Amino acid sequence: MSINTQSTVTKEVITEWFKQLQDHISSSLEMRDGKSSFEEDLWTRPEGGGGRTRIIQKGAILEKGGVNFSAVHGEMPEKILQALKLPKANFYATGVSIVLHPQSPMLPIIHMNVRYFEMSNGIFWFGGGIDLTPHYVFEKDAQFFHRHLKQVCDQHHPDYYPKFKQWADDYFYIKHRQETRGVGGIFFDRLADKDGFSKNDRWAFVQSVGEAFVPIYMQMIENNIDKTYGEQEENWQKLRRGRYVEFNLVYDKGTKFGLDTNGRIESILMSLPPEVNWQYNVQPEADSSEAFTQKMLKKGIDWV
Amino acid sequence: MSINTQSTVTKEVITEWFKQLQDHISSSLEMRDGKSSFEEDLWTRPEGGGGRTRIIQKGAILEKGGVNFSAVHGEMPEKILQALKLPKANFYATGVSIVLHPQSPMLPIIHMNVRYFEMSNGIFWFGGGIDLTPHYVFEKDAQFFHRHLKQVCDQHHPDYYPKFKQWADDYFYIKHRQETRGVGGIFFDRLADKDGFSKNDRWAFVQSVGEAFVPIYMQMIENNIDKTYGEQEENWQKLRRGRYVEFNLVYDKGTKFGLDTNGRIESILMSLPPEVNWQYNVQPEADSSEAFTQKMLKKGIDWV
Repeated sequence: MSINTQSTVTKEVITEWFKQLQDHISSSLEMRDGKSSFEEDLWTRPEGGGGRTRIIQKGAILEKGGVNFSAVHGEMPEKILQALKLPKANFYATGVSIVLHPQSPMLPIIHMNVRYFEMSNGIFWFGGGIDLTPHYVFEKDAQFFHRHLKQVCDQHHPDYYPKFKQWADDYFYIKHRQETRGVGGIFFDRLADKDGFSKNDRWAFVQSVGEAFVPIYMQMIENNIDKTYGEQEENWQKLRRGRYVEFNLVYDKGTKFGLDTNGRIESILMSLPPEVNWQYNVQPEADSSEAFTQKMLKKGIDWV
Repeated sequence: MSINTQSTVTKEVITEWFKQLQDHISSSLEMRDGKSSFEEDLWTRPEGGGGRTRIIQKGAILEKGGVNFSAVHGEMPEKILQALKLPKANFYATGVSIVLHPQSPMLPIIHMNVRYFEMSNGIFWFGGGIDLTPHYVFEKDAQFFHRHLKQVCDQHHPDYYPKFKQWADDYFYIKHRQETRGVGGIFFDRLADKDGFSKNDRWAFVQSVGEAFVPIYMQMIENNIDKTYGEQEENWQKLRRGRYVEFNLVYDKGTKFGLDTNGRIESILMSLPPEVNWQYNVQPEADSSEAFTQKMLKKGIDWV
């Protein structure tokens, strides 16, 4: 899937590559799931651009998942221009966003986003990340996940993994619970052509992140799909999904931005899980795997 | 339950009355439910004060409900003082907060809050309200509810109902869904001794609101408890509960304040429902009772 990048990459090339990434990921997941398939909604935005929302529901493996592409453009909101002290400008933003909620509580929730943003004044940046939210933390999976991400990062720069890993720890934090959302991953934003990086360098990194998604989640499925579970695990899954909702509705900047700017609600809120529960003051039993999971939901764990 | 109020009511009297209101409401609900009972958690706040959280779960009628009392005090947060341009001051805040999530989708969710706030500089106010969130809107119930509230308000001032009804319409609004949370009710805040009202006048009104809760919800149970329902109604209930979560986590000022100020999380989030679902892009069938409900979730309906 790599593209010749001898000349500086353009928004058209990036957009086309993101579309292909969406195709690749949704077809790989569909094939692996084997039962359900993605339904696609094409939408347009009155102010310019649109997207392809793809949702799978009630699969054998995926209870609910979204693999979304969008490419929108228009005038920069007045508010943001003022905050950045910039004159009138147009923007172009494109990206792929994924959230998967598996049926089995033994499989982790996963989230990936890769995005590109540019303004008519020449300013541009890339952003994104991948992070994992296991209902039950298994050290082996968290280690595999972080080692894989470190490899992806190290191909591009030795500072990337430590920096973006910490960024994810800080970003995916549910302050009112004093818990991280999951075992983290990598998160990055505003990667521009500075600090010795060219635009093509940044783009090559973002492509590597996008390409890492399928092998990572396939391995998570492989590791955990045969694990048995019962009512207790399903109940715990519903509670953990509640935390996912709390993070996304209270803290997630992408969600907040989408809700504030009249984005396509059903595409933004596709990240919210099916079958969630809030029970009062649940405390896992000492030494249970639920208690272990809760203990692992903190910043700064070195999984590599 | 009325108290002699010839002299101006004090925070001690208000606090004691709120505690008795909590007792009265929780025991009435427990008796009516007949199956489950409230568990009580007493908590204290390091900075001063505390509360009595009472939660009922898995009742015959109430799937999850909280009837909470709190009375907290301390120094006013620096941030708020700056915003209000006030010098250092202490505050005292007490109130009763209720959210009930019934088992049956044919019964409405109800929320009530009555609260009193004062500062050491002499500033004080009352706030609160009652609002109803039916999973299925029944005109008869919404009319009864609003007429009852109008009566309560009219005993105190003819302007109260229209003003506080509109305030509730505006407050309980899920902007990103372009829906009201439910059929509204009354909402009021910062009722102080001005515009010809004494502190005792305001207090008498707040007491009337508190006392209205039990008769109102008993009538809702009476009207709807024998209605049958099946899987379709249960699914719809889970989706409507999702909207309740969206409102509380994205817009509700009380929740936001609690999360921001390190309040007791399990008491704040007791408002979140059990067994919730988010499905992608659900559109009710034309002319269904689900479609009717959605049509009724708008501002400005005159239910009286």
